[in-house]
Amino acid sequence: MNWPEKVTIKEVGPRDGLQNEKVIIPAQSKMEWIDQLSDTGLSYIEVTSFVHPKWIPQLSDAALVAKGIKRKPGITYAALVPNQRGLESALAANIDDISVFMSSSETHNLKNINKSISDTFPILKDVIRTAANSGKTVRGYVSTVFGCPYEGEVSTDQVFRVCDQLFEYGIDEVSLGDTIGVASPRQVALFLEQAVKRYDMSQIALHFHDTRGMALANILESLNYGIDTFDSSLGGLGGCPYAPGASGNVATDDLVHMLHKMGIHTGINPEKLMKAAAMVQSFLEKPLPSHQMAVNNAQ
Amino acid sequence: MNWPEKVTIKEVGPRDGLQNEKVIIPAQSKMEWIDQLSDTGLSYIEVTSFVHPKWIPQLSDAALVAKGIKRKPGITYAALVPNQRGLESALAANIDDISVFMSSSETHNLKNINKSISDTFPILKDVIRTAANSGKTVRGYVSTVFGCPYEGEVSTDQVFRVCDQLFEYGIDEVSLGDTIGVASPRQVALFLEQAVKRYDMSQIALHFHDTRGMALANILESLNYGIDTFDSSLGGLGGCPYAPGASGNVATDDLVHMLHKMGIHTGINPEKLMKAAAMVQSFLEKPLPSHQMAVNNAQ
Repeated sequence: MNWPEKVTIKEVGPRDGLQNEKVIIPAQSKMEWIDQLSDTGLSYIEVTSFVHPKWIPQLSDAALVAKGIKRKPGITYAALVPNQRGLESALAANIDDISVFMSSSETHNLKNINKSISDTFPILKDVIRTAANSGKTVRGYVSTVFGCPYEGEVSTDQVFRVCDQLFEYGIDEVSLGDTIGVASPRQVALFLEQAVKRYDMSQIALHFHDTRGMALANILESLNYGIDTFDSSLGGLGGCPYAPGASGNVATDDLVHMLHKMGIHTGINPEKLMKAAAMVQSFLEKPLPSHQMAVNNAQ
Repeated sequence: MNWPEKVTIKEVGPRDGLQNEKVIIPAQSKMEWIDQLSDTGLSYIEVTSFVHPKWIPQLSDAALVAKGIKRKPGITYAALVPNQRGLESALAANIDDISVFMSSSETHNLKNINKSISDTFPILKDVIRTAANSGKTVRGYVSTVFGCPYEGEVSTDQVFRVCDQLFEYGIDEVSLGDTIGVASPRQVALFLEQAVKRYDMSQIALHFHDTRGMALANILESLNYGIDTFDSSLGGLGGCPYAPGASGNVATDDLVHMLHKMGIHTGINPEKLMKAAAMVQSFLEKPLPSHQMAVNNAQ
């Protein structure tokens, strides 16, 4: 039980949770949602994505939402940006933490970003440097770390190559994504055994999807290796574009519940979290898939 | 990663999974269900319960089902019995393994069996001895090991007291039940740290419910302590009488999926398992809650 005493949870529901949902939520509701999240004790909220509305129509109100939310001191408000143009919008909206993204597998990167990995690097390099020069922290999302829907398993060396490059450009943290929810605790252990030798664990976050139900087990295994930052989405919002109908991000409420039961602090108030989840559920007009919500909805 | 190479999964769907379902499945369908399970590579199937039909109307066809299924060599067919009368019916139906049950918490035992713990012991003693004398193996289910809906946490000493007594009467294995799905990996670790000093781990099975989503994480933690026998229910069938609408037993298909991804053998064929799950789902006329079924149903 050599687990961290405290874990940082980065809430990605308003971005990653939403971008797989068909329903369009009005900007005003998103602001209420994020304002409620700000009241739960979360220290980091990814509020939107400044990608072209053509790609993610659900987030076409990025600037409106980012400017409309009530900023609470001590909370980092983050957003995803794909390029310099997105960065400019994010900076204009006073986003605190800039997230860039790419895949560790060539085919997923090509299908998702429409560029090869080597063509993606210079674009992210510019974004990262401009963001850093603007006084922002930068987060790098690396997708398909534990498996690619097109290529299958991705080699640890290939993941490290992408992470190394992003760290060299100046990211502050990498978020390693199990984009399609295929990682098992064994794969996590084998990966982290190598990663602990190469990186400072405080610069690594893990981002699990619960497609096959293994997300909490993978997080438990990660805790054994000193990982203390995880991404999650309130209520387990979001799905998997490669397995429609399947679970999305690991649910913030399920994660907070498990961590607190393990005596690990998160700084989050579970009652306020469930209140926020009930509100999000009312916006979506369907039950959120987390276990805590299933219990709450039944009561 | 000091995990067992092989894990035995004890399928409890036709009993534990069903007794929380409102729908009554015809005996013929249950036989098809169990016959399909027999074809998956499972080595142990709990087929029914010989409790009075007044308590579990869903299982009032116990004798019919137990006698009607096709027995496959190498598979242990088990059933729950509450008393001598139930045992007689189980013996008449040629059940291989007799399961007795009681709670580790006084109040749950009283509410569930209508007797105090000390009044339950002599009844189980007789059943265990008669079953053993009839050449049967005997399994003892101990409920509320990690928490009682009425009393909260149950002390490890109290759990050990009940297990010790059942072992003294002659049970071959104890199945420790997280009846209301409240155990966390920390609680499992703290419990098993004590249990490994007292019992032979080959005589201990763990029985997790997924009410709060922690079942697979708890199983992962249990593997670290050498536990290699787990109960589960195909498709995650069954609910929690104390949290209606919540998840039931950990799903056999989710468990098999995780174990195989971890390189741990179960002897179970996942394709046949999903085929059986699809059949069970058609009987229940509602989606089964496991993650594997959510992915399959979406395809």
